[in-house]
Amino acid sequence: MRAMSLPLLFAQLAALLATFVAGSAVAAETRIPDAALAAATQLRERALADDTGWKVVESLTTEVGPRLAGSEADARAVEWAKAKFKALGYDKVWTEPVTFPKWERRSEHAEVLGAHAQPLVLTALGGSPGGTVEAEVVRFASLDALKAAPEGSLKGKIAFVDYQMQRYRDGHDYRNGGGIRHAGPSEAIRKGAIAFLMRSAGTDTSRAPHTGVTSFDDGLTPIPSAALSTIDAAQLARLVALDPHTRVRVALDCGWDGEYTSQNVIGEITGRKHPEQVVLLGGHLDSWDPGTGAIDDAAGVGISMAAGALLKPLHPARTIRVVAYSNEERGLYGGKAYAEKHAGEIARHVIVSESDFGAGRIYSFNSSAPAPAKAAIAQIAGALAPLGIATVDGEGGPESDVGPIAELGATWASLGHDGTHYFDVHHTAEDTLDKIDTKDLAQNVAAYAVFAWLAAQAEGDFGSKPRAAEPAKH
Amino acid sequence: MRAMSLPLLFAQLAALLATFVAGSAVAAETRIPDAALAAATQLRERALADDTGWKVVESLTTEVGPRLAGSEADARAVEWAKAKFKALGYDKVWTEPVTFPKWERRSEHAEVLGAHAQPLVLTALGGSPGGTVEAEVVRFASLDALKAAPEGSLKGKIAFVDYQMQRYRDGHDYRNGGGIRHAGPSEAIRKGAIAFLMRSAGTDTSRAPHTGVTSFDDGLTPIPSAALSTIDAAQLARLVALDPHTRVRVALDCGWDGEYTSQNVIGEITGRKHPEQVVLLGGHLDSWDPGTGAIDDAAGVGISMAAGALLKPLHPARTIRVVAYSNEERGLYGGKAYAEKHAGEIARHVIVSESDFGAGRIYSFNSSAPAPAKAAIAQIAGALAPLGIATVDGEGGPESDVGPIAELGATWASLGHDGTHYFDVHHTAEDTLDKIDTKDLAQNVAAYAVFAWLAAQAEGDFGSKPRAAEPAKH
Repeated sequence: MRAMSLPLLFAQLAALLATFVAGSAVAAETRIPDAALAAATQLRERALADDTGWKVVESLTTEVGPRLAGSEADARAVEWAKAKFKALGYDKVWTEPVTFPKWERRSEHAEVLGAHAQPLVLTALGGSPGGTVEAEVVRFASLDALKAAPEGSLKGKIAFVDYQMQRYRDGHDYRNGGGIRHAGPSEAIRKGAIAFLMRSAGTDTSRAPHTGVTSFDDGLTPIPSAALSTIDAAQLARLVALDPHTRVRVALDCGWDGEYTSQNVIGEITGRKHPEQVVLLGGHLDSWDPGTGAIDDAAGVGISMAAGALLKPLHPARTIRVVAYSNEERGLYGGKAYAEKHAGEIARHVIVSESDFGAGRIYSFNSSAPAPAKAAIAQIAGALAPLGIATVDGEGGPESDVGPIAELGATWASLGHDGTHYFDVHHTAEDTLDKIDTKDLAQNVAAYAVFAWLAAQAEGDFGSKPRAAEPAKH
Repeated sequence: MRAMSLPLLFAQLAALLATFVAGSAVAAETRIPDAALAAATQLRERALADDTGWKVVESLTTEVGPRLAGSEADARAVEWAKAKFKALGYDKVWTEPVTFPKWERRSEHAEVLGAHAQPLVLTALGGSPGGTVEAEVVRFASLDALKAAPEGSLKGKIAFVDYQMQRYRDGHDYRNGGGIRHAGPSEAIRKGAIAFLMRSAGTDTSRAPHTGVTSFDDGLTPIPSAALSTIDAAQLARLVALDPHTRVRVALDCGWDGEYTSQNVIGEITGRKHPEQVVLLGGHLDSWDPGTGAIDDAAGVGISMAAGALLKPLHPARTIRVVAYSNEERGLYGGKAYAEKHAGEIARHVIVSESDFGAGRIYSFNSSAPAPAKAAIAQIAGALAPLGIATVDGEGGPESDVGPIAELGATWASLGHDGTHYFDVHHTAEDTLDKIDTKDLAQNVAAYAVFAWLAAQAEGDFGSKPRAAEPAKH
């Protein structure tokens, strides 16, 4: 996941503002019929006892395994998703192309040189160029400390930002950890550094480093950029304290290699009464390469595929559309492609959601629905409450891949997972099937199924409408 | 550590029998003076508040890092140990050569081939030859299941023993896990296999595979032999269940490369009254290469070095000798060399011990001392009791490197660490400084300091004497 990046936060605030301003245009109050609420109770219990979500996650992580966007496994994942939608009884299954530059990781090594020679475990950041560098390391406790370094002071050196992310239920310290990953390399280049190292953006104590995408500001020449495991970062910090002239060798073999066209894979349970109106669920199909992408994001794929499958026998009034997005990890390519292709159908996306924050128990529910739909949102919240889910004001937002369509005016709903341990294994080799609790996953499926069912049965809409053009942006 | 192997168990039983038979030869009852017991109380409290042990462990794991026997870091570790003994105020510091065949790990890779292609994380077993193999995998749930396979049934295939070790305080399931590692490859060869894989002998759920030494029975041609991480083993088990013809590629670059001479590094606090009589403490200096050998066995080195240093101002009556043994991991080379060199001084080794089971709290105390010394052992046990240590009949034995000298007749004492989590990280990349709890380590140091102090002050001996020659062995 890449949620809670600053651009997305701004998008969310802008969307909230837009729906607030436009709110008065929504006519009658949206309501959910009593029969639908009664059916939701049964649906919830059925979902809690169902293992479809788990089986989907097991199948994707085992049979496809790691599936870096653009890799050979990307194509296998697309075939897998098509077959799985069909096996689950979805009424329509299709793909929509997503094109992006291909980045490959081939090998990565690092070692301390000299009197305390020893290997260091690291992983290249997605988007890093390859290269081999031997140089002195300069440690900074934070991104701000790196920013404060004098101009040119890192000439010929390796910048090392050694910030330890903290655990929170809503994962908000990823703003710091992920922020260093995004902005650190460019800051290092501006100070003259020839390579960039960071303590992994992770809350674990382990030798498994956390990868994740980075980028380089326009006009800068990219440098090899990598994350040390939290343990290796602590070791390097001790060694630099012992000897400020500690030298390290970083050897990355990775980089860009042309373009690749993958696919968003889409399955639908066709609506009985309003087939053209869509309740949008999903997760992303790609993963980083070190693990098998269980919590990020086979879980989201499994939760949304299973929720849709559970609704099929109920014949929902609106269409339940599940998207397995392509290449979320390197920049929301799937989410952007979906929004672009469906930009003319914003009002028909009655409410949009994605599960891309693991498989911890869902504890919060929120939505950008405007006033006339707030009562219906409260009805959904009421049906979710027995699952231990409460509306937490200010939490939530459109998860990664639905950010782009929410920006275009679609109303989002968010079901917030407990992310206390999400960043223990996020983007590491440890993101594997065993990290998912079957009962928690069933709770996730139940929550999404209940939400999607009630949104599909609601009489009246949730305020999705194309946003007014913003001339200032053109 | 390599304790609890069957040969050592037999040695222990034989030693017990020998001391029992010889017991009547020990004259007066051994006693510990009241003044020594009173001083032990102060010593215990001082040790609990002291961080020398921690600092030694931090220094070895940071400044030397991984130190595979025979590697460049082996020589640095020897220099480190000499300097550290001197810095801690030891009266005498010297080295004794230890020669062994050198084994190197250069690279190791594995991957599932075909429709479910994906990498597998494994590590070569110490002593494995290199080689690249692509073949079908045959899974066995246990070593017995492999043994029961028909002759020749694994011709051209890869044997995979998939046994999951269980956690116990005394770590006794290492008998199964380590047993598979030792005996599995030869069994596989006898059935025709061209490579051997096992689920790591570990109690964790992680991607960090557990290495450790293996050996090949005489007359067999060694095959590439490696341990998968527990997670990768579970993944491979699922894939083999999906497709019994699952093929795997294993590529190990490792093997033997001549001989190497390292050193046992020895430090002494010279006894005030009986300088020639030795209370033997120690740990092993070498480690496996993936981690920094914190629990295995920087802890033992730190505990014993710190215990000796704490005794120096007390001017113990007997000599406290601390040995940092060379190359324990590939076959007790340091312990055997020490026993061979000091075979003529068994009676002067009044009691011998080693700490080589991590840094969990010490909970048990035991000794092979015969009847006339049992009262003194009980006095020591009484002094250890406030640390939460009890005598547990039947638990304990001579830890790895003192096994050989105990076989020659030296009385052993054992201070048993809580090993519940020892095999979570044992022989993996995760065996690092952060796994050690500073308070637990101080308790370990206190226990060894109290034991060594009282053994040094005891009036009378603990029954060490050369074992009668066993003509049957010649």
